[in-house]
Amino acid sequence: MSISRYSRPQMSAIWDAANKFRIWYQIEAHACDALAEIGVIPKDSAKTVWEKGDLPYTPERIARIDAIEAETKHDVIAFLTELAEHIGAESRFVHQGMTSSDVLDTCLNVQLTQAADILLADLDGLLAALERRAFEFKDLVCMGRSHGIHAEPVTIGLKFAGFHAEFQRNKTRLLAARADIATCAISGAVGTFANIDPRVEEHVAAKLGLAPEPLSTQVIPRDRHAQFFATLGTIASSIERVAVEIRHMQRTEVREAEEFFSPGQKGSSAMPHKRNPVLTENLTGLARMVRGYVVPAMENVALWHERDISHSSVERYIGPDATITLDFALARLTNVIDKLVVYPDVVERNLNQLGGLIFSQRVLLALTQAGVSREDAYRLVQRNAMKVWDAAGEGRETKGMFLANLKADADVAKAVNAQQVEDMFDLRYHTKHVDTIFRRVFGRA
Amino acid sequence: MSISRYSRPQMSAIWDAANKFRIWYQIEAHACDALAEIGVIPKDSAKTVWEKGDLPYTPERIARIDAIEAETKHDVIAFLTELAEHIGAESRFVHQGMTSSDVLDTCLNVQLTQAADILLADLDGLLAALERRAFEFKDLVCMGRSHGIHAEPVTIGLKFAGFHAEFQRNKTRLLAARADIATCAISGAVGTFANIDPRVEEHVAAKLGLAPEPLSTQVIPRDRHAQFFATLGTIASSIERVAVEIRHMQRTEVREAEEFFSPGQKGSSAMPHKRNPVLTENLTGLARMVRGYVVPAMENVALWHERDISHSSVERYIGPDATITLDFALARLTNVIDKLVVYPDVVERNLNQLGGLIFSQRVLLALTQAGVSREDAYRLVQRNAMKVWDAAGEGRETKGMFLANLKADADVAKAVNAQQVEDMFDLRYHTKHVDTIFRRVFGRA
Amino acid sequence: MSISRYSRPQMSAIWDAANKFRIWYQIEAHACDALAEIGVIPKDSAKTVWEKGDLPYTPERIARIDAIEAETKHDVIAFLTELAEHIGAESRFVHQGMTSSDVLDTCLNVQLTQAADILLADLDGLLAALERRAFEFKDLVCMGRSHGIHAEPVTIGLKFAGFHAEFQRNKTRLLAARADIATCAISGAVGTFANIDPRVEEHVAAKLGLAPEPLSTQVIPRDRHAQFFATLGTIASSIERVAVEIRHMQRTEVREAEEFFSPGQKGSSAMPHKRNPVLTENLTGLARMVRGYVVPAMENVALWHERDISHSSVERYIGPDATITLDFALARLTNVIDKLVVYPDVVERNLNQLGGLIFSQRVLLALTQAGVSREDAYRLVQRNAMKVWDAAGEGRETKGMFLANLKADADVAKAVNAQQVEDMFDLRYHTKHVDTIFRRVFGRA
Amino acid sequence: MSISRYSRPQMSAIWDAANKFRIWYQIEAHACDALAEIGVIPKDSAKTVWEKGDLPYTPERIARIDAIEAETKHDVIAFLTELAEHIGAESRFVHQGMTSSDVLDTCLNVQLTQAADILLADLDGLLAALERRAFEFKDLVCMGRSHGIHAEPVTIGLKFAGFHAEFQRNKTRLLAARADIATCAISGAVGTFANIDPRVEEHVAAKLGLAPEPLSTQVIPRDRHAQFFATLGTIASSIERVAVEIRHMQRTEVREAEEFFSPGQKGSSAMPHKRNPVLTENLTGLARMVRGYVVPAMENVALWHERDISHSSVERYIGPDATITLDFALARLTNVIDKLVVYPDVVERNLNQLGGLIFSQRVLLALTQAGVSREDAYRLVQRNAMKVWDAAGEGRETKGMFLANLKADADVAKAVNAQQVEDMFDLRYHTKHVDTIFRRVFGRA
Repeated sequence: MSISRYSRPQMSAIWDAANKFRIWYQIEAHACDALAEIGVIPKDSAKTVWEKGDLPYTPERIARIDAIEAETKHDVIAFLTELAEHIGAESRFVHQGMTSSDVLDTCLNVQLTQAADILLADLDGLLAALERRAFEFKDLVCMGRSHGIHAEPVTIGLKFAGFHAEFQRNKTRLLAARADIATCAISGAVGTFANIDPRVEEHVAAKLGLAPEPLSTQVIPRDRHAQFFATLGTIASSIERVAVEIRHMQRTEVREAEEFFSPGQKGSSAMPHKRNPVLTENLTGLARMVRGYVVPAMENVALWHERDISHSSVERYIGPDATITLDFALARLTNVIDKLVVYPDVVERNLNQLGGLIFSQRVLLALTQAGVSREDAYRLVQRNAMKVWDAAGEGRETKGMFLANLKADADVAKAVNAQQVEDMFDLRYHTKHVDTIFRRVFGRA
Repeated sequence: MSISRYSRPQMSAIWDAANKFRIWYQIEAHACDALAEIGVIPKDSAKTVWEKGDLPYTPERIARIDAIEAETKHDVIAFLTELAEHIGAESRFVHQGMTSSDVLDTCLNVQLTQAADILLADLDGLLAALERRAFEFKDLVCMGRSHGIHAEPVTIGLKFAGFHAEFQRNKTRLLAARADIATCAISGAVGTFANIDPRVEEHVAAKLGLAPEPLSTQVIPRDRHAQFFATLGTIASSIERVAVEIRHMQRTEVREAEEFFSPGQKGSSAMPHKRNPVLTENLTGLARMVRGYVVPAMENVALWHERDISHSSVERYIGPDATITLDFALARLTNVIDKLVVYPDVVERNLNQLGGLIFSQRVLLALTQAGVSREDAYRLVQRNAMKVWDAAGEGRETKGMFLANLKADADVAKAVNAQQVEDMFDLRYHTKHVDTIFRRVFGRA
Repeated sequence: MSISRYSRPQMSAIWDAANKFRIWYQIEAHACDALAEIGVIPKDSAKTVWEKGDLPYTPERIARIDAIEAETKHDVIAFLTELAEHIGAESRFVHQGMTSSDVLDTCLNVQLTQAADILLADLDGLLAALERRAFEFKDLVCMGRSHGIHAEPVTIGLKFAGFHAEFQRNKTRLLAARADIATCAISGAVGTFANIDPRVEEHVAAKLGLAPEPLSTQVIPRDRHAQFFATLGTIASSIERVAVEIRHMQRTEVREAEEFFSPGQKGSSAMPHKRNPVLTENLTGLARMVRGYVVPAMENVALWHERDISHSSVERYIGPDATITLDFALARLTNVIDKLVVYPDVVERNLNQLGGLIFSQRVLLALTQAGVSREDAYRLVQRNAMKVWDAAGEGRETKGMFLANLKADADVAKAVNAQQVEDMFDLRYHTKHVDTIFRRVFGRA
Repeated sequence: MSISRYSRPQMSAIWDAANKFRIWYQIEAHACDALAEIGVIPKDSAKTVWEKGDLPYTPERIARIDAIEAETKHDVIAFLTELAEHIGAESRFVHQGMTSSDVLDTCLNVQLTQAADILLADLDGLLAALERRAFEFKDLVCMGRSHGIHAEPVTIGLKFAGFHAEFQRNKTRLLAARADIATCAISGAVGTFANIDPRVEEHVAAKLGLAPEPLSTQVIPRDRHAQFFATLGTIASSIERVAVEIRHMQRTEVREAEEFFSPGQKGSSAMPHKRNPVLTENLTGLARMVRGYVVPAMENVALWHERDISHSSVERYIGPDATITLDFALARLTNVIDKLVVYPDVVERNLNQLGGLIFSQRVLLALTQAGVSREDAYRLVQRNAMKVWDAAGEGRETKGMFLANLKADADVAKAVNAQQVEDMFDLRYHTKHVDTIFRRVFGRA
């Protein structure tokens, strides 16, 4: 079961015994209605099941069920026995022709769809935060980096927009994954409907907002769950991507942004000066956990014959653990994004760190446009760039150095004049399509 | 790179250097067309790129590229340098404003869509085989087993139908995964289109059958690939499920089916009597491999800032390995299904192994219908069943024993008469909804 | 956190807040002793820390610590603040020159060694059970199977002996893994001992039964923990191996053994005749979980610079989850082994199922010994074997058939006479080295 | 199979068909010697096996074997048949009483020990490089960082020393893992030695430098291999740790070190100014792959009964892939370490970036030593530190600011005088135990 520190109550409640037994009861009661409708059991019995059985699962009832299970070693039988204590004689019509897995598997899928709905709401919250910050910083030009090395300018807004696009995709994936596990099986011991009419399944499915499982064995096939948990693993990996970006932005030498640091917070017991990106580091670890549940879920697919129960213990862990952890992580990430402190001055300072080298490609292209071969142009630019690079490495002042070097290079001058070179050192050149990209992502700019 | 033993030529060819460079060339040439169209480079230059550059990538050319890379340590620069040797002076217009990743990432996605198309065709082949065998054995009643223990009857056809439903789902998932990686990025060094107009991306995307990537950094975001490889992992897990079922059916004590054993084949170097399910055992192992590639693909998502290149080596492995292995596995599984030998006599013998115990639930339900409480009915049936169970365990003949026991049980007789009990021992009771299920899966019965 | 259903109290207690804070306290108090000894803090202060602080961590104290953490967002500071409320003014000497990780990491390693000690005891219990059953069934000849197909005879005792050898290896591995995480770091903020003398670390390590960490950064390097959890994954995989063997032995068509089925137990809510191998199926699933924690533990190794805290959330999960689950699984497996019911009659029946084919290799070898080429001998044996094989497949009686076929084969007769063939059908031939093997494994036979 | 780009010839050769068949031959020939010695086959036959069979496995021979396998679908039979073509009639004594797995499994373990020996040599090479650089930079003080945030000073040498300690541990682990897979099984069809005397196994084991497997089934138990590949996964994770450190050191804003950038190398096709840490990024990806092989290896443990062959396909991949990739990665890392360019000036500049905040803990401790309570001291230091922190965030000059702030703080002055505060800003305070640590790691300082 997940850790309270990394849990939120609404998601945790899905996995409580009370919610589980409640769903079990609803499956059984709805099934009784359908059985009564087609004449298998008396209509009055079905009515009694609702009238006497529709009670909350209190801690006392749960303890009673646990006690019975300790003897029978069978959870559904324990549940039914306790229910019979409330319903009385009519209880013999409950679970007619059903098998435990009809209840357990349909319940699990109800829980997973409930969990998916929370996760979808989480994604909406995150998307809203990302969109807000994306527009807030749409035009704040910052250094773009590949390999951790300064490359060319982007904007802080573009970073958020990219995360937004990624989580839009994750939402699409989660909707597909939700559909994958939103099925109901009431098909009896080995899925043949020998002892229960398919109409019962159809009725229960409709009542619970699920689709009937086209073909179940004793269980709902586990490829559905494998794909569901795999999708959570992908989403967790996207969370890690955002978290790693923020950790980089916050590291002392970069410091373009910081997680919100509340009054009274202590960054370190030993070093009072510290403000650490602990939330995003935490998210990095949580992502590892959610990913770790993917392969066990996939190993659950190859059950023996019409089923073995090896999947069950795995799902008792990863059902709660993966959904609770991911819910917590999405909420935490949303909070981090919402409150993230961005330092525009530092952003600008970093942009200028390499003495103009970030314009190297534009110079390269201009030289080729002016008739220099690509190979020669590359060498021309590189030889001027590397001097600046090395100066920066030696800690020397490099402001304006690249531009000056280029102007002083006779071979460069043969192709482009000084003014042309100067004009290339222009940030607006790099942001001219930001609106285009925003329109692609948000439908507006 | 995958193992020749587990490779098929069509899929392997996707990952050959010749196909890769061919795609690179197409990306560059199409980009030149678009650049010419919008006036960035001369139209004649774009024409020249096609006229002089549209040549097959022979082993000689590939060797030349490799030689250049050995010096520059940069594969795309090596490729462009070699291309320039064919195109001449106009080559300086090639790759204008593009970055290596525009070529590499778009190429990878072309390769993955090519791979997905083969896998989709593989799935169609497998689905056809499963459908054929499902209808062939639709009515061959066999033992259904949960926990490896005889439960109630199903049919061999239902097994195949269940696999068919599962692989239909896998096809749906693969189509979604294919869409996820069918994007094109021609957006320059950090994705801002600073040096290349977005219309170039749109043109190249259209020509290659891809969608433009709404927001790329230097690279196409790796959540797309993570979800793609995760989906392959789910499909592999389904393959394992079928393989494990067949291995169980073939094991000596079950022996209801056998992989086709060709004349001249030897099962064991030491034991001439052996016929082993080696193909499905092999598939079980291959599934492990494809699953093993899922987490590395997910670890690739969190690249640093606008990209780092850590994903690249992973993809050099898993791009080929996952798709080649899965293609081989799907083809092998299709072949196994196509040729699987089923032994109806053994199927029937196994069905009767437990002396009629497989009808225990029907008796239980009839007793409750006749007014016995569920708990009492369970005890009545269980006490008669366990005698048969123990007799079978001791190797005694159990034919008809369960029926006889029930008839001799005075408490049972109080609720149902002998004829009623006898009528419950009827296989047709268990198969009456097979057509319903087939219609759900295949749309026909 | 692990699931109560799959937890045992002794192991769970290791991960309780009370045990954790107790260890934290001990680390701090021992450190004070060392600090006093070398003159950094007053000796009386160190004494006071023990006199006033050596109190149990009651639920009230834990709640108080939690409340402080809610404000400071720093767990060790919260702990120290609460401790100060007991110790008073002398508390300012506590944690002198230490960093939170000195406490947290050393505590984690204490907990892991405590957990390892329980797991080692678990292994001893399992080894004892395996040894007992191995000798009990040392000479019970049963079918050996490769690929699930009857091969040649082994004994039930050999199966247990093999598992014993495997868990002996696991014990060796766990001892190495325990040594790997049995280190103590009291080295200050970044591991330089700037603010704390190395002698403090040496003292605390000695008191806690740990070795000083030769070089820590802010944290104890996580390669140690990665290897520890990987070793748990290997042990879990061995558990799965035994579990799968028992599941196979219990499946209806094999039924050579059964998990103990207690009076009052119900195998199925729907089918009263069922006795399912639910414990070993459960173990199969638990093994998947413990394996699932291996990769997250390995992803924890590459922390940034002198540490980032991403490992922490992972360890909050897998520390308890992996050890509690494995402890439970080892205990459950021990119980299964202890009580496993073996059916010698069925064992013998299965041995005879293939009409003597299990002697095919001996005939093959005898023919080659008699001068027939290996290839001819293989063909001779295979042609006689396959008739029996096919007859068995058709459900015909095959008793003695292989022997009869061989005797009737003129080509066989040219090489070996009838009596010689008959003598080859002898189980004792196959068990003659069982004692040798037992001596290798147990040092006695 | 691994990728040539990430392969080194010596390791690749281990997995070539020629080496494999060579080992198979040696196993068979040594077994013949033992069989002859104990009188099972003629001594002359054993001699002939060596005299006529001890030939290199040329491409022609390998092709011949492949052709036979295409018919028999059995690799060992194909191998034996081809060998018989060289040896003639005496070949019928080859493989007497052995099963294919005796050859295959013993061969695999020979290959894995050969691979382990190369990896051990790789580790030695890496350790040497790390030791050299550790001493070279033993006293070069640099910023220590936790959470990516400046903490307190360490030295560059300490970083290398820490990696050295970690790879020393990895060497110990690999030696244990090597021992785990250095076993030989020549025990026949199901491991009973029915058809082959245990003395044969002992003889072959001794000749090949292996230990006899105490109890094999048809195969050598796979827990051995699981632990072996898990250990490679741990080592790969350590490689990733070093790689991530170097990537961080090289990122533009840090730039304390750089991978060697050779003349003629191009960092980017588009941006001529780039020098990217591509080797360590590559290593990060390779680590993901080696980790990805751990779980499949663990899934191989639970083979059915006395064996199934599902492990085989997995090992055909991961045997070569994991060892070749890790060998390449270790060699690449050694090269990176050997040639790493360190920039002392930048190292010093970064150290001073936060205006002296890195001394905050020392001030904190001094205040507590002077009688201020820990909580008050923390607040005093934090309030002075955060002003510097914010100034740095706003890009203001912070040189000397923390010291000045402290001096100006009346509450601080009550506890410590100005000179005392000044004396705390001393790097030597932080490096005084470097020699101690070096002696722990290297046995010398």
